[in-house]
Amino acid sequence: METINIGMVGYKFMGKAHSHAYRDLPMFFPKSLRPEMKVICGRNLEGVAEAAAQFGWQEYTTDWKELLKRDDIDLIDINAPSDVHKEITIAAAEAGKHVFCEKPLALTLKDSREMLDVVEKAGVKHMVGFNYRFTPAVMLAKKLIEEGRLGDIYHFRGWFLQDWIVDPEFPLVWRLQKEVAGSGSHGDLGAHLIDMAHYLIGDIKEVIGMNETFIKERPLPAEMSGLSAKGSKESAKGPVTVDDATLFLARFENGALGSFEATRFASGHRSTNSFEINGSKGSVIFDFERMNELQVYFVDDKEDVQGFRRVLATDAPHAYAEVWWPSGHTIGYEHTFIHSIVELMDAFNEDRQPVPNFRDGVKCQQVLEAVDLSIDKRRWVTVSEL
Amino acid sequence: METINIGMVGYKFMGKAHSHAYRDLPMFFPKSLRPEMKVICGRNLEGVAEAAAQFGWQEYTTDWKELLKRDDIDLIDINAPSDVHKEITIAAAEAGKHVFCEKPLALTLKDSREMLDVVEKAGVKHMVGFNYRFTPAVMLAKKLIEEGRLGDIYHFRGWFLQDWIVDPEFPLVWRLQKEVAGSGSHGDLGAHLIDMAHYLIGDIKEVIGMNETFIKERPLPAEMSGLSAKGSKESAKGPVTVDDATLFLARFENGALGSFEATRFASGHRSTNSFEINGSKGSVIFDFERMNELQVYFVDDKEDVQGFRRVLATDAPHAYAEVWWPSGHTIGYEHTFIHSIVELMDAFNEDRQPVPNFRDGVKCQQVLEAVDLSIDKRRWVTVSEL
Amino acid sequence: METINIGMVGYKFMGKAHSHAYRDLPMFFPKSLRPEMKVICGRNLEGVAEAAAQFGWQEYTTDWKELLKRDDIDLIDINAPSDVHKEITIAAAEAGKHVFCEKPLALTLKDSREMLDVVEKAGVKHMVGFNYRFTPAVMLAKKLIEEGRLGDIYHFRGWFLQDWIVDPEFPLVWRLQKEVAGSGSHGDLGAHLIDMAHYLIGDIKEVIGMNETFIKERPLPAEMSGLSAKGSKESAKGPVTVDDATLFLARFENGALGSFEATRFASGHRSTNSFEINGSKGSVIFDFERMNELQVYFVDDKEDVQGFRRVLATDAPHAYAEVWWPSGHTIGYEHTFIHSIVELMDAFNEDRQPVPNFRDGVKCQQVLEAVDLSIDKRRWVTVSEL
Amino acid sequence: METINIGMVGYKFMGKAHSHAYRDLPMFFPKSLRPEMKVICGRNLEGVAEAAAQFGWQEYTTDWKELLKRDDIDLIDINAPSDVHKEITIAAAEAGKHVFCEKPLALTLKDSREMLDVVEKAGVKHMVGFNYRFTPAVMLAKKLIEEGRLGDIYHFRGWFLQDWIVDPEFPLVWRLQKEVAGSGSHGDLGAHLIDMAHYLIGDIKEVIGMNETFIKERPLPAEMSGLSAKGSKESAKGPVTVDDATLFLARFENGALGSFEATRFASGHRSTNSFEINGSKGSVIFDFERMNELQVYFVDDKEDVQGFRRVLATDAPHAYAEVWWPSGHTIGYEHTFIHSIVELMDAFNEDRQPVPNFRDGVKCQQVLEAVDLSIDKRRWVTVSEL
Repeated sequence: METINIGMVGYKFMGKAHSHAYRDLPMFFPKSLRPEMKVICGRNLEGVAEAAAQFGWQEYTTDWKELLKRDDIDLIDINAPSDVHKEITIAAAEAGKHVFCEKPLALTLKDSREMLDVVEKAGVKHMVGFNYRFTPAVMLAKKLIEEGRLGDIYHFRGWFLQDWIVDPEFPLVWRLQKEVAGSGSHGDLGAHLIDMAHYLIGDIKEVIGMNETFIKERPLPAEMSGLSAKGSKESAKGPVTVDDATLFLARFENGALGSFEATRFASGHRSTNSFEINGSKGSVIFDFERMNELQVYFVDDKEDVQGFRRVLATDAPHAYAEVWWPSGHTIGYEHTFIHSIVELMDAFNEDRQPVPNFRDGVKCQQVLEAVDLSIDKRRWVTVSEL
Repeated sequence: METINIGMVGYKFMGKAHSHAYRDLPMFFPKSLRPEMKVICGRNLEGVAEAAAQFGWQEYTTDWKELLKRDDIDLIDINAPSDVHKEITIAAAEAGKHVFCEKPLALTLKDSREMLDVVEKAGVKHMVGFNYRFTPAVMLAKKLIEEGRLGDIYHFRGWFLQDWIVDPEFPLVWRLQKEVAGSGSHGDLGAHLIDMAHYLIGDIKEVIGMNETFIKERPLPAEMSGLSAKGSKESAKGPVTVDDATLFLARFENGALGSFEATRFASGHRSTNSFEINGSKGSVIFDFERMNELQVYFVDDKEDVQGFRRVLATDAPHAYAEVWWPSGHTIGYEHTFIHSIVELMDAFNEDRQPVPNFRDGVKCQQVLEAVDLSIDKRRWVTVSEL
Repeated sequence: METINIGMVGYKFMGKAHSHAYRDLPMFFPKSLRPEMKVICGRNLEGVAEAAAQFGWQEYTTDWKELLKRDDIDLIDINAPSDVHKEITIAAAEAGKHVFCEKPLALTLKDSREMLDVVEKAGVKHMVGFNYRFTPAVMLAKKLIEEGRLGDIYHFRGWFLQDWIVDPEFPLVWRLQKEVAGSGSHGDLGAHLIDMAHYLIGDIKEVIGMNETFIKERPLPAEMSGLSAKGSKESAKGPVTVDDATLFLARFENGALGSFEATRFASGHRSTNSFEINGSKGSVIFDFERMNELQVYFVDDKEDVQGFRRVLATDAPHAYAEVWWPSGHTIGYEHTFIHSIVELMDAFNEDRQPVPNFRDGVKCQQVLEAVDLSIDKRRWVTVSEL
Repeated sequence: METINIGMVGYKFMGKAHSHAYRDLPMFFPKSLRPEMKVICGRNLEGVAEAAAQFGWQEYTTDWKELLKRDDIDLIDINAPSDVHKEITIAAAEAGKHVFCEKPLALTLKDSREMLDVVEKAGVKHMVGFNYRFTPAVMLAKKLIEEGRLGDIYHFRGWFLQDWIVDPEFPLVWRLQKEVAGSGSHGDLGAHLIDMAHYLIGDIKEVIGMNETFIKERPLPAEMSGLSAKGSKESAKGPVTVDDATLFLARFENGALGSFEATRFASGHRSTNSFEINGSKGSVIFDFERMNELQVYFVDDKEDVQGFRRVLATDAPHAYAEVWWPSGHTIGYEHTFIHSIVELMDAFNEDRQPVPNFRDGVKCQQVLEAVDLSIDKRRWVTVSEL
């Protein structure tokens, strides 16, 4: 069985999710190519050593450039902070390494386009980490649309609601600093909605948005690790430089209307990543907090029993269901990463680009920036302007 | 347009519900016979006078026997406390009056059978107040079963959960006293479940039950009105003589298995009156707190989109929908009474017995007592034993 | 007991809803002033005669001007088609009659402002038919906000989704014709969302919208009555001149962000009239299809049991609950009209303007037109521009 | 870091679930003792070899006795078919091996008691596979009860509904044969409910049950693998010798009333493993199809905002949440097994018996047989009779 040798940069939350996916894949998808967990890389020696041992990597290093020099590394998995994606990707591609990069590809559209150019010129495989596409219930929505079972699409409604920074004393972590994170709710949450819309509905023609930073200053963090952090009322304060919430309207190329909302100020929503699609023949509703379910409605159902069905995508006809547990036994967040890696391995096996790849990453970034521009200029922006 | 002249005994909660139904009927069902709100009767002169004015009755009286003597009264509507149902019914029928009696018909099976005998011998029309049958979503369940769309029925699961006496300081109201109320949760709530099962599934063959009175003594009520009452910690206490909760298992004549639970100790459930039915071709789930909805599942749905549908029974194909509001605009509790009266008026118009009638009332009482006997004897009881 | 004498113009769907409210009010709110159902008016003699008999009006007429001449009419209730609201309102006010007018006040902001001027100059009482405010669960949301229990408000999300014209063969009824209806989903459904936002959050500062007519031509209707109509594939076609869907973003004066969507093309949604509000201390979610419920979340709930609560607004602490049915027994659509009339009668009793009144109607119209202007001009529009 | 060497017997569905748990544990619980996946055993050489490679076991064998002879095996994990549990357990314990045995311990109470005696005499550790206890939302329910936050417990309602054999042509697999499976829905599904009740409420005093085999004969299976099988209409038929559904009522030692239902004939329910508990201070509702959620109600919530809360047990205060994903990102079925192994490893580390252990397995079996006896004798059976 052929193996793909992985070198990974990043070892925090996303590093853990990716590592687990590599680790689990051979057990559940034995016919897939096998990812070999070669080397993990991180800036802190102690931290990365511990991660290597815990996650099951054969080696570790603090110098990502080392990975590029080794002949026994096929693919670089980049899940380090967003501000280093570009440099590592370009160097990796130029060294002939395939790249799997977490979203967002880069902090700017310009950078992400440059990254796409480089990987295409280098002729390497490239994938971007839009893991939510690989939720079986989402794949059912995709199937229904592709088979025409929802008819013409009229509406896409996407909302990604969180509440982890509602407390004004929550400290000024890196995700609230523009220079590191690029943007706030827009790039973090909205990006997932945009990719979902691209995947399910198609290209977006024009957008207009608005945003807000509700809490303008926050205490500087006393300590910080992964997603968690602690501040105190006594701490000095610094300015929040990203958006707390971004909303936008969109018109799709196919005529559908879109509504998008990303916020970190929706009290009570831990991570409500949802969409609804209405078509001439039916509708679907999805919420990642109940990720095994898709609500499905068909216009042509018998007149006296019309209604949204709660379909549990854990049965034989659903994607990946045969490798997991019996019908009605659910899977979780981490499975979206395992399925992502299945696609990546399949792309190697079939010698094609994986999907979603950097083209999808760039397209997402283009819409993100079109929205930002529409906010700056207070007008509609045609996506192709950028 | 022919009218049916009504004399009503009782003017509290149920009197209000019935009065409203008579009052609303001509407006929404103009082709129905018209109930004429002639006389309302109650023991307290001031109370019944006020009720007459408020509810819209032409006259009032404190002597129900008076109603029986008048030629201009066609039907006696009895919603006074259960312990007087029998006497009034028998006198009314013997006076040639038709009878609409609230459930339970009487405090005992023996008494309810006597009542049935009398009304049948008198040749009058008789109806019993199982209003939940007249919920459009329930009528959809009935239709699906009758048309064979659920196939052979395997399971009936009924649960009626309330929590109004969870507080041990809630006073000893008449509903907690056996001599007035007959029984507690069993006769009050369980009776509705049993009638629902009779309506939807058919006859019950045998039962075994259990019950409990969790709070054995309660403060005597300082004041009491309708369903509300107030006690105090200082009040003297008296014994609760009815069941707080009754559960039973049942086997239906058609082979289906039944599970029934009625309780007033289900914290958080104001009035969860629910059932689920599973058949070889499909299932339905109902909850009266969302009375406009029926969850419906079909075994033969396309394999990749199987799931319970939330059907809103407010559309044209559903019962009574055309007289009410536009699709998606819901109706409430009181409408079940209006629909009951439509059936009663239709029975007059078509010169037949209304359904449900005293036969249904007796059948329900028979199961109630079979359950009680099974609890006393700690064994299965065949319903036909009684 | 004082009475208010009503003359009503209109006798279709809304006429029925209003009539029922007048009819039911004295029974459930006996301490309220009593609306006297004097005269109903409609253009079709046979139709209005039948409506008078069915709904319980003492007299009927085909000439609304007749109502204004009578001394025994105190208030004119206008629920005729929107294009006649203005003329009747102005004439009524000038005749010294109080006015209860269905939404929208008029087809244009200019007209509605003129109507407001006239009623204010005339010194009569004026109310507008935003009935959804009078849903007990909505009133709970209002109470939580007013008591500061949701904290600072960050988000209002409103969506009113219907699907009654998804079928492209559904005929070109008057609601799809701009000259009669004024607008489509925007004025019909969006208006309710806007009023809800005004009621719960406050004034809107600026908006930007988009809209679409998905089906541009439809068969001319063969017959039409109330909300129902029939067409046929063979019918000649005419242009749809109103919007099928309108979405807009908004910024409120208090800094909250708003998202609004009204559509008649959301397959599977019969009448999903919903909103969600997120504040610094809590959130609420409402859906009129489950109108007795409000989902409520509090940030300060104990850490291990945080979550949205499903509150059933049928208990004693909730608005109007004491006059309706026992806890857990739900009410329906029509009750929002009864509660509206309670407010109207209370305003008479307390000699004040009812709320919502024409000021609210104008304010709603102002936002509707600001959205339309933003669509025409493809830019943000400050509401105060209009 | 100390390791525990595992020898596992069984390699089908449960073998996969257990293997994955051993494999994942060190990554997510690095401070736990480390299970070493030494040897996997199965009857079919080719099958077990493939499983070893796929699941990550170091060695494989077809002779389970071999495992007992090796000094480098500390614990025998038994998830082979139920009819061999006893023999392997006894031999293992007598060889000084610790035992982790899937439920049910054995086909009879007598056998399971013998197993308990042997493991206790041998002084080895013993655990039984009631994995559902280890769902974080269930552990929240346990915590609420133990801290007295639900008050006195009045009701336990458990239902485990599946529908995988509703089709009468589904073949006669081993799970439908008494001699291999012991019982049908009762031992397979009901056993989980009983253990859940023991865990959450306490001991059961007495029971009465009923059961049914709706489809008495089924086609003999043409092929069969794990949980899946195929039959054909042409196949010869054989008798189903287990129950399709078993229901029972129970009284707990603490006075609570219990209602239990296990069925494989609930069309539409893939695997609805649910319970509800009502206490004097609150209630909880759980459904394993939404395993990350617990519905929680408190009697003492402020009067106007009482209602069941949907608590997502993915936050910091919830069990195991800190090792998994960010708040709002859910886990799945397999995690219950990982958590089970954490408990097993902790028991080694703290040198105590794991919980649940064989005492819990025996107690569950005792109730199962008490129910069976109550069905045979058609009377209440006191659990301590057996």
